[in-house]
Amino acid sequence: MMKSMEPIILRFECPDQPGIIATLSTFLFKKGANILDVDQHSTLEEKGRFFCRIVFCFKEKGISLTKLETSFKKAMSPFKANVVFSHHSQKMRMGILASKESHCLADLLYRWQSGNLPVDIPFVISNHPDHQSMVSHFQVPYYYIPTTQENKKEAEILDVVKHNTDFLVLARYMQILSKSFLSAYGKDIINIHHSFLPSFPGANPYKQAFDRGVKIIGATAHFVTSELDAGPIISQEVTAISHRDSSHHIKKTGQHTETLALWRAVDKYVSHHIIRIKNKTIVF
Amino acid sequence: MMKSMEPIILRFECPDQPGIIATLSTFLFKKGANILDVDQHSTLEEKGRFFCRIVFCFKEKGISLTKLETSFKKAMSPFKANVVFSHHSQKMRMGILASKESHCLADLLYRWQSGNLPVDIPFVISNHPDHQSMVSHFQVPYYYIPTTQENKKEAEILDVVKHNTDFLVLARYMQILSKSFLSAYGKDIINIHHSFLPSFPGANPYKQAFDRGVKIIGATAHFVTSELDAGPIISQEVTAISHRDSSHHIKKTGQHTETLALWRAVDKYVSHHIIRIKNKTIVF
Amino acid sequence: MMKSMEPIILRFECPDQPGIIATLSTFLFKKGANILDVDQHSTLEEKGRFFCRIVFCFKEKGISLTKLETSFKKAMSPFKANVVFSHHSQKMRMGILASKESHCLADLLYRWQSGNLPVDIPFVISNHPDHQSMVSHFQVPYYYIPTTQENKKEAEILDVVKHNTDFLVLARYMQILSKSFLSAYGKDIINIHHSFLPSFPGANPYKQAFDRGVKIIGATAHFVTSELDAGPIISQEVTAISHRDSSHHIKKTGQHTETLALWRAVDKYVSHHIIRIKNKTIVF
Amino acid sequence: MMKSMEPIILRFECPDQPGIIATLSTFLFKKGANILDVDQHSTLEEKGRFFCRIVFCFKEKGISLTKLETSFKKAMSPFKANVVFSHHSQKMRMGILASKESHCLADLLYRWQSGNLPVDIPFVISNHPDHQSMVSHFQVPYYYIPTTQENKKEAEILDVVKHNTDFLVLARYMQILSKSFLSAYGKDIINIHHSFLPSFPGANPYKQAFDRGVKIIGATAHFVTSELDAGPIISQEVTAISHRDSSHHIKKTGQHTETLALWRAVDKYVSHHIIRIKNKTIVF
Repeated sequence: MMKSMEPIILRFECPDQPGIIATLSTFLFKKGANILDVDQHSTLEEKGRFFCRIVFCFKEKGISLTKLETSFKKAMSPFKANVVFSHHSQKMRMGILASKESHCLADLLYRWQSGNLPVDIPFVISNHPDHQSMVSHFQVPYYYIPTTQENKKEAEILDVVKHNTDFLVLARYMQILSKSFLSAYGKDIINIHHSFLPSFPGANPYKQAFDRGVKIIGATAHFVTSELDAGPIISQEVTAISHRDSSHHIKKTGQHTETLALWRAVDKYVSHHIIRIKNKTIVF
Repeated sequence: MMKSMEPIILRFECPDQPGIIATLSTFLFKKGANILDVDQHSTLEEKGRFFCRIVFCFKEKGISLTKLETSFKKAMSPFKANVVFSHHSQKMRMGILASKESHCLADLLYRWQSGNLPVDIPFVISNHPDHQSMVSHFQVPYYYIPTTQENKKEAEILDVVKHNTDFLVLARYMQILSKSFLSAYGKDIINIHHSFLPSFPGANPYKQAFDRGVKIIGATAHFVTSELDAGPIISQEVTAISHRDSSHHIKKTGQHTETLALWRAVDKYVSHHIIRIKNKTIVF
Repeated sequence: MMKSMEPIILRFECPDQPGIIATLSTFLFKKGANILDVDQHSTLEEKGRFFCRIVFCFKEKGISLTKLETSFKKAMSPFKANVVFSHHSQKMRMGILASKESHCLADLLYRWQSGNLPVDIPFVISNHPDHQSMVSHFQVPYYYIPTTQENKKEAEILDVVKHNTDFLVLARYMQILSKSFLSAYGKDIINIHHSFLPSFPGANPYKQAFDRGVKIIGATAHFVTSELDAGPIISQEVTAISHRDSSHHIKKTGQHTETLALWRAVDKYVSHHIIRIKNKTIVF
Repeated sequence: MMKSMEPIILRFECPDQPGIIATLSTFLFKKGANILDVDQHSTLEEKGRFFCRIVFCFKEKGISLTKLETSFKKAMSPFKANVVFSHHSQKMRMGILASKESHCLADLLYRWQSGNLPVDIPFVISNHPDHQSMVSHFQVPYYYIPTTQENKKEAEILDVVKHNTDFLVLARYMQILSKSFLSAYGKDIINIHHSFLPSFPGANPYKQAFDRGVKIIGATAHFVTSELDAGPIISQEVTAISHRDSSHHIKKTGQHTETLALWRAVDKYVSHHIIRIKNKTIVF
């Protein structure tokens, strides 16, 4: 690989047709960009759509990304594409919401602190006071916003998250966010569900798994939509269990599985590997 | 391990209480048996039950297993136990039923022929004529019993299976067996369901998995009960998939996963490692 | 995806430099090809090299692949590339060599017969007579060529394989092929080694694994080079074991792992997903 | 399970012979103990040895474990057994040694703090000053003992560890402990090796793995013996990699794999599931 300036990531989606890659790569070549990585996918079923993620860079400094985007979108306009440019080095701001259980919260903070999760974490919001001390270890502000069945404090939460986050992670936040909250926030929200969806949606899935006698349990990280536990799946992890595992053990094992699934989903998200497509995801 | 005669396998289940192992192992010791292997499990939740599987042998030939069973059951009668003795060397007779798809059928026959599945296979029944030639390669009788929505030919099937099988395997047999058939047959039936139960019960689970955009698919081998796809789970296998997999690929990958799950279930079954317990299994 | 004629697969490798994808995709677009799939990789370490695999097709019949290749190579000549074109539909001819153990041989034949391995199998060569009957079930010619320490019958084998195979698979062929055989054959040979290379090279790796008390065993499919067990690795599979597994069980489990690793390697090979690069492989 | 006092764990090892379980379980029954769990294994190869782990408890308080041990050992003396009794509730004292890399250290501390590793951690010793602040977050004493090639400060380390630890964990401690240190310490030491042993022993295994082009990397937790990286293996974990992974990525992935393998080994160790047997382990 030639030495080069900071990589830029392009995600591109449009109806499939001949000439997309030729047009796109010729445009970048003429601008002096060097392509480092191409991931491409065309849906074969239904009406064809074309998806790609291209990483490129310039040999010289001083390229204006804004100008580039404008001229790129103009050049590609015949393809009716959705286009997103991202800077590899620009950290996304990840707001975290948690409830009583801390394993996913702690895992994200720990990976972040040890340099394995390149994000900024502006705050943690929780409807439980218990994690204050742990979160302050990591020098992250902690907002305790108690909720009730009647009052989910969504306006208060929205105030905190609206302007200083790029996306939210529900690290076992046990409140269902309303349609109007989702729409007012308007950005991506990643949730971890503690089962292998679509098995065991809803409450207490490890108890359900134990009662059903399954031999494998799982966890599912997905985008939040207004329909409960039905949003596009990003990542799933599984762990084998046996009759020896009590429902307590299953829960402990499950929590480890959850942290893995959530971490992998967030990792893919912040490195701009995901394209959402209706109720599914392309994870390059 | 001391040199010894043919191993005998004992499966034992009773309400938990002190003294079970002491009584049981002292009995065997006094009869001159040498214990080779012990697997034990007590359910911790609900009212405690005790389960064990013990493999033992005698140094001398000529022990009557029938007499042993009788005196064992007498000695253990205070424990109100369910007791099953099996000979390691006595092959079980496995009847196979299949429909149109042949991958599970072929996999079982091939593992059997290559010496990796110690059973006798008295016949294959199918409601499709297509596998005649493949099955005859393996020198196994093939009974073509075509079924219709109206006539499932259960009486005819029962005639074939009733007396010369110890258990049945539904290797993708796409007919639901009636409650009265199950009751008339009265022995274990193992089914392979082509999904990670309880996700996607019923028809066409790979299409469902594709439509839902899951990242992992699975297969579940379970005992058949009168409730569809709800019998005790024996084994589950999973395989990771991605957006690159078409629903055709998902199906192919799934079929490989099915053969693994079914083989492992049958392997555990014929080596007497399974104890059924209500809607669950202990798989030692 | 648009309806199209038979897919063509292009593998392309050259020193990394700007403009490769632009030139390549523009060439294909001008010829009327539609790109279906792109896999691309640049080595980041050492001096950069560029690798890609592109699947494309034409909307019209009657394109001459020979002419296309010629003009493509001319157009791409500044890049000093290695270029291979393959037809998706053109089956490769796979010669199989086996010794005493039959599990890998039987697994390949069975997958092939059930339509899951799109190759032609012109023959099986073995230095053991035992598999004659099994192979003839599959209606594949069986050449029994007994070997001795002194006489490996390489000339005789070369006669059989030289002209009617595109590659060879050593399905547990326990003879080391000489440097001069490899050079005279001049095409790819895939071997399955029954360990997780580089652990336990050489003979009897399951015994070695048992003696060392490892908790996981593996199998490695690799291209054959003149250095024993040191050729480029294509695929590796692993299975967990425990102290409960006797060396006999470890061997049985290992054989299952071998068939998986070999199958996956052959599957990738015949679908033209592999680029060899010195002592490594790119497996798209 | 009947309600009972604190569980006691018995590990028992002796030459195989008839009557062991009968004698052992009858002894416990007569003492009023209730057996909760039995794991048993006999080595089949070589001269037979018998291993078991039994968990039992008493219905009444006030049983003296010392008296029990004495009379148990007397009763079992004909079997020439090695016997270890452990209290489930008695936490082991785990000393940690680390060098420059912190991932294994941090992972153990974090699991410990979140209640998933039931040990006491009296201190962390490191030959690097960098982890002082992180360790003090967890309120664990940090001893910075810098070492050189010439002076490994083993006497100083021994002073710290000798009397207030039950075992040591080398969480990527990059110094080889001398034979005389091992002998003077005299208790178990668990090391994490950053490869799938016996592949790539010694330094820089991820670079070796990258250069060899393997498709799976691993990590191995093992007991330390005087022979480098050759001690009894406790647990191994693997992760799939591909040509896309740079040696930097392989290292990151490997570190995650290491933390898993080390955690699982320590978890099994402190719950008294391991019996060492020459150069192997029984891990119940």
